[in-house]
Amino acid sequence: MSMAVLLSMKPHLMAAWRDAMLALDPTLDIRMFPDTGAPEAIEAAVCWSSHDMAELRRYPNLKLICSMGAGVDHLLRPPGPPPGIPVARLVDTMLTTQMGEWVLLNVLRFHRQDLDYRAQQQARVWDELDAPVTATRSVGILGLGALGSHAAGMIRAVGFPVCGWSRRAKSLPGVTCFDGDAGLDAMVAQTDILVCLLPLTPATRGVIDARLLARLPTGAFVINGARGGHVVDADLLAAIDAGHIAGAALDVFEPEPLPTDHRYWSHPRVVMTPHAASITIPASAAPQVVENIRRARTGEPLLNLVDFSTGY
Amino acid sequence: MSMAVLLSMKPHLMAAWRDAMLALDPTLDIRMFPDTGAPEAIEAAVCWSSHDMAELRRYPNLKLICSMGAGVDHLLRPPGPPPGIPVARLVDTMLTTQMGEWVLLNVLRFHRQDLDYRAQQQARVWDELDAPVTATRSVGILGLGALGSHAAGMIRAVGFPVCGWSRRAKSLPGVTCFDGDAGLDAMVAQTDILVCLLPLTPATRGVIDARLLARLPTGAFVINGARGGHVVDADLLAAIDAGHIAGAALDVFEPEPLPTDHRYWSHPRVVMTPHAASITIPASAAPQVVENIRRARTGEPLLNLVDFSTGY
Ligand SMILES: NC(=O)c1ccc[n+]([C@@H]2O[C@H](COP(=O)([O-])OP(=O)(O)OC[C@H]3O[C@@H](n4cnc5c(N)ncnc54)[C@H](OP(=O)(O)O)[C@@H]3O)[C@@H](O)[C@H]2O)c1
Ligand SMILES: NC(=O)c1ccc[n+]([C@@H]2O[C@H](COP(=O)([O-])OP(=O)(O)OC[C@H]3O[C@@H](n4cnc5c(N)ncnc54)[C@H](OP(=O)(O)O)[C@@H]3O)[C@@H](O)[C@H]2O)c1
Repeated sequence: MSMAVLLSMKPHLMAAWRDAMLALDPTLDIRMFPDTGAPEAIEAAVCWSSHDMAELRRYPNLKLICSMGAGVDHLLRPPGPPPGIPVARLVDTMLTTQMGEWVLLNVLRFHRQDLDYRAQQQARVWDELDAPVTATRSVGILGLGALGSHAAGMIRAVGFPVCGWSRRAKSLPGVTCFDGDAGLDAMVAQTDILVCLLPLTPATRGVIDARLLARLPTGAFVINGARGGHVVDADLLAAIDAGHIAGAALDVFEPEPLPTDHRYWSHPRVVMTPHAASITIPASAAPQVVENIRRARTGEPLLNLVDFSTGY
Repeated sequence: MSMAVLLSMKPHLMAAWRDAMLALDPTLDIRMFPDTGAPEAIEAAVCWSSHDMAELRRYPNLKLICSMGAGVDHLLRPPGPPPGIPVARLVDTMLTTQMGEWVLLNVLRFHRQDLDYRAQQQARVWDELDAPVTATRSVGILGLGALGSHAAGMIRAVGFPVCGWSRRAKSLPGVTCFDGDAGLDAMVAQTDILVCLLPLTPATRGVIDARLLARLPTGAFVINGARGGHVVDADLLAAIDAGHIAGAALDVFEPEPLPTDHRYWSHPRVVMTPHAASITIPASAAPQVVENIRRARTGEPLLNLVDFSTGY
C-alpha cells in the first residue's frame, strides 16, 4: 500500500509546502485537504489548526503529526491530537532568525526612545532626549528555548546585559539565567525590557499579569512575541496608563485577528504586528518534516517531539 | 605661566565636560566661555560651533582645538580654525555604539516592513506581509571610518550582506568593499538599504542626489546619520514620491533644527530624529581630549587629527 502525507493548512500555503517537500523526496505521495483519498493511506499529517485534530481521527494508520509552526498550544486544545499519535513542532533557523530580528527591532525601538521621537516628529518638535546607555539597559527574556536563546544571543551581541528565565535550570554564555517562581521574581525586578518567548501552557498562561508588571521597574517595556494568552491585556493596559510601563510591542493576541475595537490598536504606547514576527517559510521548514516522515516510517527516533505532560 | 583649557559649548554641557576632565586631571585650569581670563593663558580649546573659530584667533598661545564631536565640517567652514592650529576630532566607543544602534534600528525597521505595519495598525488592518529574507537584503554603507566600519560589523552580525564604500581602497572582514566613483556606482546598484556615514566635505556634499538614487534598486531605503548636506532633499523626496525609494530615516538636516514647514516632518515614509543618533557623553569622550592636551604640551603626536586637505 502506498503511504501518503496529508497537508491541511490555509490553501495559499499548500502548494508551496507540497513543492518544497517533493523537491526533497519526489517519491512522497502528498494529498492536499480535502482531497485525501483513502483514509487508510495517510500516515503523516502536516497541519496548523486545532480543528484538523478532529479530522485526523479518521486516519487509522496515522503515525505522526507535524506542526507547521513552533508553537503547538492550539493543536493540544480539545479535542487534541488522536490518542497515542506523536506531534512534532518546528525548530527552524529561519523562524529563530526572524523572531530574533523582530525582538531586536523592538528592543532597539524602546531603548532608542523611538515612540517619543515618533510623537515628536508628528508634533514637529525638535528636541534631543537623553543619550541612552546600552550597558545599563537590562533585557529579560521569558523562555530560553529555540527562540529565546537565539534572541538572547542577538541582543547580547548588540551590548545589552541579558537575563533569561526557563523552567529547568539552564546555563547560556553571557546570559544571567533564572528558573522557577523565585527566579522569575528576581529576574523581573532587574529587567528594563521584558521579552516573552514562552510556549503557551497551563503553567505560563497569564504570566504577564498585574503582579509581574508591578515588579518591573517603573519605565520598563514589554515585548510579546509568543502567544496572546501570556498577557493579561487589562493588566498591561492599566500598567501603561498608570505610567508604570512605558510601552509594549505585541505580535500575538487573543483572539486573532484582534477585534478592531480593542484599545491596543489606537494606544500611542503600543506597537502591533499581526502575528508576523516569525513566518514559516516552507522551503526552510520542509527538510525536518520530510526527515521526520522518513523516521516515522523506519521507526527511528523523531525530531522536535512535543511533550504532552508539559504542553510544549 | 599657568596654561589653561577653554571650553566653549552649549551652557548645559559645560559643567559635565569640566567635571569629566578634572576627574582625569585635577591640575587642569579650565575656563568656561565667556570667562576666559587672560587670552595668553589659553593653550587648548574644546568646542563645537563654527563661530568659536573667530573667537579662537584672540588666543596667541593656542596649540590645539578639540572638537566635541566626530564631524568637523562646521569647524572648517569660513573663517575656519586659526591658521596653523591643529584640530582633533572625537573617535569614541560610546559614539560609535550609539550610531551603530541607530543605524541597526532603522535597517531592521525597513527590513521588517515597520512603516507598513505602523500604517496598518493606524488603520486597524490585520494583514501579514511577505516574510522578509535577511540573506538577500543588502546593506550598503557610504563611509567606512570609525562609525561606518562599526555599523557594518553590527549589521553583518545580524545576518545582512554588507557592502561599504570609502575614499581609499579598504578591506574589512565580511564586508564587500568599494572605493572611488566607479565603486560607488557598482555598490549602489546592489544596495537595498543605503546608509550614509560619510564626513561632509566638498567631495561628499550632495552625494545622495537624483543620479545616485536612480541607481538604487526600486524599493530601496535610505538612512542618513552623517550630515544633512549629504542629501539633496528635493531629489530624495521626489524619488520617494515616485515610488522608487520606499522610505528614509534621517537624523541630520540642513539647516538644523529643520524648519517646521519642511515636508520631511509629515511625510509618511520619512522617519526623523533630531540629530540624536549619537550624542557625545563627556565622561566617555574626555579621556582622549585630556590625553591630547597632554600631548600638545609635551609635543608628542596628537590623536585623531583632522586632515585639512581632505576635510575630515
Ligand atoms: N509570534 C510568532 O510569530 C511566533 C513564531 C514562532 C513561535 N512563537 C511562540 O514562541 C514559543 C516559543 O518557541 P520555542 O521554539 O522557543 O519553544 P521551546 O524551544 O520549546 O522553548 C520554550 C522555553 O520556555 C521555557 N518554559 C516553558 N514552560 C515554562 C515554565 N512553566 N516556566 C519557565 N519557563 C518555561 C522552556 O524551559 P526549559 O528550557 O526548561 O524547557 C524553554 O526554555 C512557541 O511556543 C510559540 O508560541 C511565536
Ligand atoms: N548624527 C550624528 O549624531 C553623528 C554623530 C557623529 C558623527 N556623525 C557624522 O558621521 C561622520 C563620519 O564619522 P567617522 O568618525 O566615521 O569619520 P571617519 O572615521 O573620518 O570616516 C570617514 C569615512 O568616510 C570615507 N570618505 C571620506 N571622504 C570620502 C570620499 N570623498 N569618498 C568616499 N569615501 C569617503 C573615509 O574614507 P577613507 O577610509 O578612505 O578615509 C572613511 O571611510 C562624521 O563626519 C559626522 O559628520 C554624525
